[in-house]
Amino acid sequence: MPDTTGPLLHSFIPVRPGSHFPIQNLPYGVFQPLAGGEPRIGTAIGEYVLDLAELEKQGFFEEDDLLHGTGVFAKGALNAFMKLGRPAWTQARERLSRLLRSDEAALRDNAAIRKAVFFRHDEVLMKLPADIGDYTDFYSSKEHAANVGTMFRGADKALMPNWLYLPVGYHGRSSSVVASGAPVYRPSGQTKGEEDETPVFGPSKLLDFELEMGFFTGPGNELGKPIPADEAENHIFGMVIVNDWSARDIQKWEYVPLGPFLSKDFCTSVSPWVVTLDALEPFRTVGPRQDPEPLAYLQTGERQTYDIELEVMLRCRGMDEDQRICRSNFRYLYWSMVQQLAHQTITGCNVRPGDLYASGTISGPDPESYGSMLELTWRGSRPLKLPTGEERKFLHDGDTVTMTGWCEGDGYTVGFGEVTGEIR
Amino acid sequence: MPDTTGPLLHSFIPVRPGSHFPIQNLPYGVFQPLAGGEPRIGTAIGEYVLDLAELEKQGFFEEDDLLHGTGVFAKGALNAFMKLGRPAWTQARERLSRLLRSDEAALRDNAAIRKAVFFRHDEVLMKLPADIGDYTDFYSSKEHAANVGTMFRGADKALMPNWLYLPVGYHGRSSSVVASGAPVYRPSGQTKGEEDETPVFGPSKLLDFELEMGFFTGPGNELGKPIPADEAENHIFGMVIVNDWSARDIQKWEYVPLGPFLSKDFCTSVSPWVVTLDALEPFRTVGPRQDPEPLAYLQTGERQTYDIELEVMLRCRGMDEDQRICRSNFRYLYWSMVQQLAHQTITGCNVRPGDLYASGTISGPDPESYGSMLELTWRGSRPLKLPTGEERKFLHDGDTVTMTGWCEGDGYTVGFGEVTGEIR
Repeated sequence: MPDTTGPLLHSFIPVRPGSHFPIQNLPYGVFQPLAGGEPRIGTAIGEYVLDLAELEKQGFFEEDDLLHGTGVFAKGALNAFMKLGRPAWTQARERLSRLLRSDEAALRDNAAIRKAVFFRHDEVLMKLPADIGDYTDFYSSKEHAANVGTMFRGADKALMPNWLYLPVGYHGRSSSVVASGAPVYRPSGQTKGEEDETPVFGPSKLLDFELEMGFFTGPGNELGKPIPADEAENHIFGMVIVNDWSARDIQKWEYVPLGPFLSKDFCTSVSPWVVTLDALEPFRTVGPRQDPEPLAYLQTGERQTYDIELEVMLRCRGMDEDQRICRSNFRYLYWSMVQQLAHQTITGCNVRPGDLYASGTISGPDPESYGSMLELTWRGSRPLKLPTGEERKFLHDGDTVTMTGWCEGDGYTVGFGEVTGEIR
Repeated sequence: MPDTTGPLLHSFIPVRPGSHFPIQNLPYGVFQPLAGGEPRIGTAIGEYVLDLAELEKQGFFEEDDLLHGTGVFAKGALNAFMKLGRPAWTQARERLSRLLRSDEAALRDNAAIRKAVFFRHDEVLMKLPADIGDYTDFYSSKEHAANVGTMFRGADKALMPNWLYLPVGYHGRSSSVVASGAPVYRPSGQTKGEEDETPVFGPSKLLDFELEMGFFTGPGNELGKPIPADEAENHIFGMVIVNDWSARDIQKWEYVPLGPFLSKDFCTSVSPWVVTLDALEPFRTVGPRQDPEPLAYLQTGERQTYDIELEVMLRCRGMDEDQRICRSNFRYLYWSMVQQLAHQTITGCNVRPGDLYASGTISGPDPESYGSMLELTWRGSRPLKLPTGEERKFLHDGDTVTMTGWCEGDGYTVGFGEVTGEIR
């Protein structure tokens, strides 16, 4: 198997230092040319999007038996490609890595084909990567669970008794998962303050973001047949950044006993480029020590997480540039993706290609790493200071939240681009 | 608009007294002929399934401008038909009612066409009615919420403070919604008894059914634009019976603070025929008085529910016939479908054609009407006696649970058929 991640690989497409999309990344996304045409699958390389549907049409996958003739790149969603499974994903990655290498002439020296298959990022609209069947959201940061638990129940019973034994999760709403850039409408709903006798109706006053990452699933399993932890990586297609927008005041009133519902399901934003586990492999690392030892079906090898730096930026009206308000890391999460998927399917529940699994808010040990306004301002008691002189406890209309994430390699960066949304 | 529900309507297809499928019903479902062929849309009439895809091909919808040429009946799911909206649904109903009337010769007197378009029920396999995008489950029976609350928290705090103000609900898993007849695999998972220090892993010992009804949605709304209560009926395509299989021991350990997850998502069974609101119109009735008065966005006319008799039957190995263990009624529900849909969308959350909304367990005032084993046996303390001499606190392997529902009309019955599943 050829190396597709090494630091010495270079593309004939110029890639600026720090770009999220060097030849070592090769994420997949769904794009639509602004000049017209149907949505289709592409990969990102430097400042360009490479059109895989057109590549397929031009015969560049003819030698790839798992891809050629499947038509998976001409679709408006990645589901069909996700369904093919890991051997096909690897075949595609190897082909693209080869075609884009600086020492490979096929694309490099064919100006006509290059003109047909490359688009600048500003010439395309990025769409949602998949038709999401089920969207599941976990709660896998111990620091986040402890912070929220401390605020709502006190430090002595911050973590629920089940938290250390299983990755707590719940089902979210798939219809309202949107691509980065889509506006976020402030939800209205029922809230009830401590002093109110009865609930009142109106726009949420405690609108928040949650910094999360998510993974899209590959082939999946049949109903009744769990995915064991040691096979779970074959069902993880790749990762994105997720903003799980949350209305804290609606959540507080509605969530007992069946969990968050309207407080979360008005909108969830995801970054458009899906970074594969193959691209993340050099950044594989060890997660937090798990104590107590997990039950057998949740036991895995040690290196089950990835070193992914994460940032949240806030820009309010009147600000010239983004202000960084959070810096966190994916490796802080207590429960791994592999454990989440093994847990979700242990009852025999089936997973389909294109299901989305989000991590839950990724908070780390220090206050700068807290992944929500709720935690950053400690429930509004320590407002953020803005350069305009204003303060923020929660989000105002016109505020834009942007999240980004990247892995720092040896002379290159594998990044996720960004997910952004403005409150309307 | 011609009458499609009157007691004097008769079909040339013989319909036995008590049949769930007289000409007044005309439900929609997805069937596949056992002899071969693709899944397609049909309606049920007496002992027969009428093939709407073939009817369309034969030109029987040529005068129906909202249907002709849309191809919605040749699909393997009802989503495309659901998306067309109420005027198209009414047009289809009127056409089918006319074609099947005893005084209409077009089908009645054409043996060749009759042979092509009618299948006996035992000649077809019924499939899931729709590709379900999102599945939402409510908790709208006051009696059920009070029963469960009393068992788990005591009678004085049985109902949570929010219960009387909003239809409490949560998102379920759409991938594991199956058609009637599919086997139900007993889930394994983590449970923790009162006496256990740490959780243990194994098959659920407290497997239960929940008697529910559900509705499939029609056109739906755009993100950010709620569906007002007085327009909600235009987005309700029709109803089915739902068995929300539940593992009580898994539920008890996992559900704090984010709600039921694995304890519910291993399987949900639905009846295959979707009964439209037009067919249910004669059975429209008044629900329970709501006190306190709901907030403005949840206010509706009085007659927002339907008089639908419901039964649950249990058959265990060694039993010659079903034993009825529950008799309930849809009208016992406190929150109506219209209120559920207005609530779900009040934040701007979008609904798509083919989303499924379940009611929550439908328990009534008397113990015979309790819609789950948990309530019928009062948490196992009053086991059901079986004719074999055995007892049941919860479900055993080999037990089959069948639910049915019907409306008693003036000389005819509009029914839902049944939803059944055997525990494996």
